[in-house]
Amino acid sequence: MSALRFETLHRDPSGFARRARMHLPHGTVETPVFMPVGTQATVKSMTPADLSEDIGAEIILGNTYHLMLRPGADLIERMGGLHRFMGWDRPILTDSGGFQVWSLGELRRIEEHGVRFRSHIDGAEVFLGPKESMEIQRKLGSDIVMAFDECTPYPATHEQAAESMEMSMRWAAECRQHLPVNERQALFGIVQGGMYADLRLQSLSAVNDIDIEGIAIGGLSVGEPKEEMMAMLDVLAPHLPADKPHYVMGVGTPDDLIEGIDRGIDMFDCVMPTRNARNGTLFTDDGKLNIKNSIYSDDERPIMADCDCYTCKHFSRAYLRHLYMAKEILSSRLNTLHNLHYYCALMRKARTALEGGNWPQFRDQFLQRYRGAQTLR
Amino acid sequence: MSALRFETLHRDPSGFARRARMHLPHGTVETPVFMPVGTQATVKSMTPADLSEDIGAEIILGNTYHLMLRPGADLIERMGGLHRFMGWDRPILTDSGGFQVWSLGELRRIEEHGVRFRSHIDGAEVFLGPKESMEIQRKLGSDIVMAFDECTPYPATHEQAAESMEMSMRWAAECRQHLPVNERQALFGIVQGGMYADLRLQSLSAVNDIDIEGIAIGGLSVGEPKEEMMAMLDVLAPHLPADKPHYVMGVGTPDDLIEGIDRGIDMFDCVMPTRNARNGTLFTDDGKLNIKNSIYSDDERPIMADCDCYTCKHFSRAYLRHLYMAKEILSSRLNTLHNLHYYCALMRKARTALEGGNWPQFRDQFLQRYRGAQTLR
Repeated sequence: MSALRFETLHRDPSGFARRARMHLPHGTVETPVFMPVGTQATVKSMTPADLSEDIGAEIILGNTYHLMLRPGADLIERMGGLHRFMGWDRPILTDSGGFQVWSLGELRRIEEHGVRFRSHIDGAEVFLGPKESMEIQRKLGSDIVMAFDECTPYPATHEQAAESMEMSMRWAAECRQHLPVNERQALFGIVQGGMYADLRLQSLSAVNDIDIEGIAIGGLSVGEPKEEMMAMLDVLAPHLPADKPHYVMGVGTPDDLIEGIDRGIDMFDCVMPTRNARNGTLFTDDGKLNIKNSIYSDDERPIMADCDCYTCKHFSRAYLRHLYMAKEILSSRLNTLHNLHYYCALMRKARTALEGGNWPQFRDQFLQRYRGAQTLR
Repeated sequence: MSALRFETLHRDPSGFARRARMHLPHGTVETPVFMPVGTQATVKSMTPADLSEDIGAEIILGNTYHLMLRPGADLIERMGGLHRFMGWDRPILTDSGGFQVWSLGELRRIEEHGVRFRSHIDGAEVFLGPKESMEIQRKLGSDIVMAFDECTPYPATHEQAAESMEMSMRWAAECRQHLPVNERQALFGIVQGGMYADLRLQSLSAVNDIDIEGIAIGGLSVGEPKEEMMAMLDVLAPHLPADKPHYVMGVGTPDDLIEGIDRGIDMFDCVMPTRNARNGTLFTDDGKLNIKNSIYSDDERPIMADCDCYTCKHFSRAYLRHLYMAKEILSSRLNTLHNLHYYCALMRKARTALEGGNWPQFRDQFLQRYRGAQTLR
């Protein structure tokens, strides 16, 4: 029996947007969902209590590449798995390590059964392929395991993109062999193919041919114009299997999420809310706000008037600007809390709109307001 | 009417230790008490909710020197005072800025009415004396205001120590003139005199002659051997006024606090629990533990078995070591939470022992266990 059961609750009759639910070994996830990124067995500056109680996160992401290098998958397995190690008892999705290894650029060499690279921590040579990635993710014990793939660079010729995609498809099949269907961990395949519609559709078909529990779309948000990303989602939307969750990897801004939901996407992850928080960039319905700006030095208002996160309920922009200027740790923490709360609350609002049958209005109103005030203040 | 009412609840019949209570404009403080240090309008990495709910802090300290330079006392006053600015509604004690200015060494010049120095932030010339310090602390709105003084260097000749102490006493009287007794802010005088018993007693007498609400002992923990510090507290203990709180500034280790209580001290502050936390040094009843140590890499135990802080209830030493090695923000946060909880819980245990009439046993047992295992692990 599979580790994932997927239920569709509502569909927007005018398009692809849907409200669904994933049942996983560590709990239920309501979709559309944003997954905070917990690279090194921690969502930077947040405790599990912040994530579950204040932010309302139902699933987080862990990074295989970082964890295999430090503290190591064997150690995490001995400590009872990633959930127990980091004190998070809700679902976890782990990526395959493929994207991070690809990001190493010159430091890695691709071979038929995986990638050879040097650790960014101690320079040691490491080999990671479908077999190794499945073994590591098994030790981590995540609820959702991602297939090991190669992210096609942007730009790439049709030939390059085809070769890369075909290798990823061979690797995806290998992953399923190394991690057969089981009750503890679900496997997601990743659609590649660069910015070529024909390759994307071939890849989706290949992924569908493997007995996987979810469909991810990789290789987007890698430098291409937003229109190209949305064009690829438009190509795929009518062909995504209705009975499986759809996850677009590494995306994106709040408006990207709304556009993604509109194209049938159920799951998102991105470092933007956490990384931007540490750089003083805060999300609101009226676009982004840069807390460094001196106009906030005596601004008694919260970041966003109708936000019920701990940060907005207790602190002024003036105080948050002071913390940022004084390089205080609390700055990263309060900003991260707000940004993640903002992303997760946006998904809650989207779910409510889908349940209430007023998705198109919600989508249009949000995009108009957010983009209308898009200029960074 | 004074802003401070002091009640003594229990005394240890065998010595000077006592259990008391301070009533202040923002609430009641049970003593003996440890005050976490919130230098820049934040106790580093902690929210007010952490401090009040998990740590159980009843009063915190703010630093006049840092706040006057950034974000500035006028801005904090416009934002409704330090309590409102930082979202902390319990009592605050602010220091006078004297100690920080003294720490600038060559960068400051002492004059009859204060000290001229350059800001460590932008190099601007600033003047701070009794009048300015009272004005700034009035704007900050702290419950307890410290007199502006000079910290006598260690070592110092008798003549140097006498001159410095006499200037501090003139400044203390000036402070009272600039901040007359009022219902919003209590003023504490600071006993100086270096390591000379005669000067310390003269200084205590001079401070007592001013109509102040509390007695602080300054100029300790500045590099002298611990025996000298305790010798000075022994000299002062029989002469400290019974009807006023006694505060030893910038002290110290957990055993220093127990030794201080034994010498009639009610209040302590120190950056040690917060700073050590960020450096990976954690306090336990069995002495200090250095989380960097590789012996903890797969240690599933909490920092301290019988600690009920959030960190100890949820995370292993192995996880805390990983966070430290990976330079994660959460490392500073979880370590700070434990260390401050440890200090405040130690004060709660001391209060319980004093109430139960078994202070000497508690003191001896604690010191034996703590010092017996003192070696840093």
